[in-house]
Amino acid sequence: VNDRSTAVSPSSAADPRLPLVQFVERPGIIDLGWGHPDPALLPVEQLRLAADRVLAQYGADALNYGHAAGPGPFREWVAERLAAIDARGPEPASIVASAGNSQALDQVVSLLASPGDIVLVEDPTYHLAVRILRDHPVELVPIPADERGLDTDVLGDTLDSLRRAGRRVRLLYTVPTFHNPTGVSLAPERRHALVRLASRDGFTIIEDDAYRELSYDGPAPRSLWSIAPDGLVVRLVSFAKSLAPGLRVGAIVADAPFARRVADSGVLDSGGGISHFASLVVAECGRSGIYGTNVERLCGAYRDRRDALVASLKRVLGPAASFIQPAGGYFVWVTLRGIDARALLATAEALGTSFVPGEVFHLAQGSMTSLRLAFSRYAPAALAEAAERLGHAAESTRV
Amino acid sequence: VNDRSTAVSPSSAADPRLPLVQFVERPGIIDLGWGHPDPALLPVEQLRLAADRVLAQYGADALNYGHAAGPGPFREWVAERLAAIDARGPEPASIVASAGNSQALDQVVSLLASPGDIVLVEDPTYHLAVRILRDHPVELVPIPADERGLDTDVLGDTLDSLRRAGRRVRLLYTVPTFHNPTGVSLAPERRHALVRLASRDGFTIIEDDAYRELSYDGPAPRSLWSIAPDGLVVRLVSFAKSLAPGLRVGAIVADAPFARRVADSGVLDSGGGISHFASLVVAECGRSGIYGTNVERLCGAYRDRRDALVASLKRVLGPAASFIQPAGGYFVWVTLRGIDARALLATAEALGTSFVPGEVFHLAQGSMTSLRLAFSRYAPAALAEAAERLGHAAESTRV
Repeated sequence: VNDRSTAVSPSSAADPRLPLVQFVERPGIIDLGWGHPDPALLPVEQLRLAADRVLAQYGADALNYGHAAGPGPFREWVAERLAAIDARGPEPASIVASAGNSQALDQVVSLLASPGDIVLVEDPTYHLAVRILRDHPVELVPIPADERGLDTDVLGDTLDSLRRAGRRVRLLYTVPTFHNPTGVSLAPERRHALVRLASRDGFTIIEDDAYRELSYDGPAPRSLWSIAPDGLVVRLVSFAKSLAPGLRVGAIVADAPFARRVADSGVLDSGGGISHFASLVVAECGRSGIYGTNVERLCGAYRDRRDALVASLKRVLGPAASFIQPAGGYFVWVTLRGIDARALLATAEALGTSFVPGEVFHLAQGSMTSLRLAFSRYAPAALAEAAERLGHAAESTRV
Repeated sequence: VNDRSTAVSPSSAADPRLPLVQFVERPGIIDLGWGHPDPALLPVEQLRLAADRVLAQYGADALNYGHAAGPGPFREWVAERLAAIDARGPEPASIVASAGNSQALDQVVSLLASPGDIVLVEDPTYHLAVRILRDHPVELVPIPADERGLDTDVLGDTLDSLRRAGRRVRLLYTVPTFHNPTGVSLAPERRHALVRLASRDGFTIIEDDAYRELSYDGPAPRSLWSIAPDGLVVRLVSFAKSLAPGLRVGAIVADAPFARRVADSGVLDSGGGISHFASLVVAECGRSGIYGTNVERLCGAYRDRRDALVASLKRVLGPAASFIQPAGGYFVWVTLRGIDARALLATAEALGTSFVPGEVFHLAQGSMTSLRLAFSRYAPAALAEAAERLGHAAESTRV
């Protein structure tokens, strides 16, 4: 679950070779549009060791058709890890390996939604999740979110009117912890309210929990999964942010009956698990301690980056903008005063920085004055420089 | 694209650990039910070297969000390889990396089929592809196949009556080369007839080309993709059979507009390519020659296995059965005379061998006298022993 990719197209004229990665380097631009990890923070050598060890330990079993729900060592390690970083942990039998949260979201929607069903989404929300949802014949209904996350009062009202209209709400997709794009975490009382409403109205919550490991100010909030009765929440856990996105490994965490249902889907039954070798590599990182050490290192580095960006933004934007300091994840959400974000973007790019305008994350008409800044890909000095450029751009854009 | 997995459940009582792989060992049984490679034939050390080299060469770029269509080196190598093993090759721009043919089939159906659309399938066909198709809100219509593959005369008649009934045929799924379960390849004139009908009636052919590399008696037949106009055939290419299923890497091959459409789907845009690191490992195997050497070695080994099984079947079954000698792939399809395959299975298992009864591969009522034998997982001596046991079982089952 990453970022901006639809916003920028690589120029094949500039480089005749086909692209290797998604990120498109634009000379002279510090591009805070991309929700990608800094290449310098990816544990290349540790993953080489882990891949070696997996092949030494499991031999051909690491390369054959894997168990449909994911290899046992992976499910066992994920269960242990989630127990350590959340209020309660799942049984291994409630866990199915995925090829990352994007694939997992696609599969869960395929399994749970019928044509014409309503899927509720936060507004603003992760725009590429919206694209995945729109690849299915469902109807999306936005629920507004504020600085405490999804507005559960509006959600309750919306559910009431949909029920009166005879419409079936099947799913609600949410990023309740260190939200993309806002960085906000859903307030504790709203977490409970959301779970109560799902229980009352019989819809399933898809909890995209991609950012939990990247928590900078103490433990992350309890997951929705951990406070809900069995069967109400399908939680998508990713190792893209905490280890490496290119491995394409995540996990679907629900209850044992749903895990069996996912594992029994045609794709996993036929293919033998969606990420067999790569998920063994992730499990080996977990078992050997590489994973835990890496998460600590990432949290330290990203905390510094967040602090650098936030401090610079405060200094350069002053009263021209407000923003929420995120306690985790990749993003700072900025709301401008009297400046259109699209106009600011044009000026900012001319001055050597970039971002994603907030309207991209809104389902229908959205705020024209907000924007998302990712602090994941650049070191503190570059972030401070980007903030300076943004400040200059804001000054010259203000009317 | 593998096999029997729905037929056997692992006993968690026997082994308290969660399963690692899909194959379930049953002591004393030579199980020809599984369309899996022999673990002894998987190139463990070569893949370790390839993974090492990928991380040394590309560093963090091998682990970050990959280009949505797959990494350039992978698409370039697949284009070269397909040009070498088929009548014509695609441009790299017509290729998108997949996580194997099961994931690719699921995605292509999601993109192309609307609720209520008709999807035509061969009968018999790969039963787990049917499960993938049934995870979508489409209607499956079987078209009979014989020893020359899909019966294109019946297909023409079926298309005519569907058209008269005002029904929309959107897709046809076929394994035209070294078919699962029959081992048959679609006859050349029928390949052309199929392409003409698709062109006339405006449906897309999904060509599951998982077995092309495993060709034992000369070159494999030209792919449907290679003889069709652009845009008519979406071909699914797999490296599960020619390298290692656990890597979960394949490719979707169509034309450039369709490849862009696949790469632009929500899942690939968000996740950054579905198999970034693993597809770089496959490309490195290709570039370094590991892949070509491995395919030659596999063809030699599987040819010996096919020959051993076929020779033994001839000797032990005699006039009790007929079968078609496959020119490639994993399977021999046996048709019994006057013996019910389910009854034979019970006796065969008591005598220490097993298989998948043919009815599993039929959409509706199927032949009760056919069965599928996989020769991929066992060495020639074990295959000869399995055939002996099957012969004894047939003798005691005959009425």
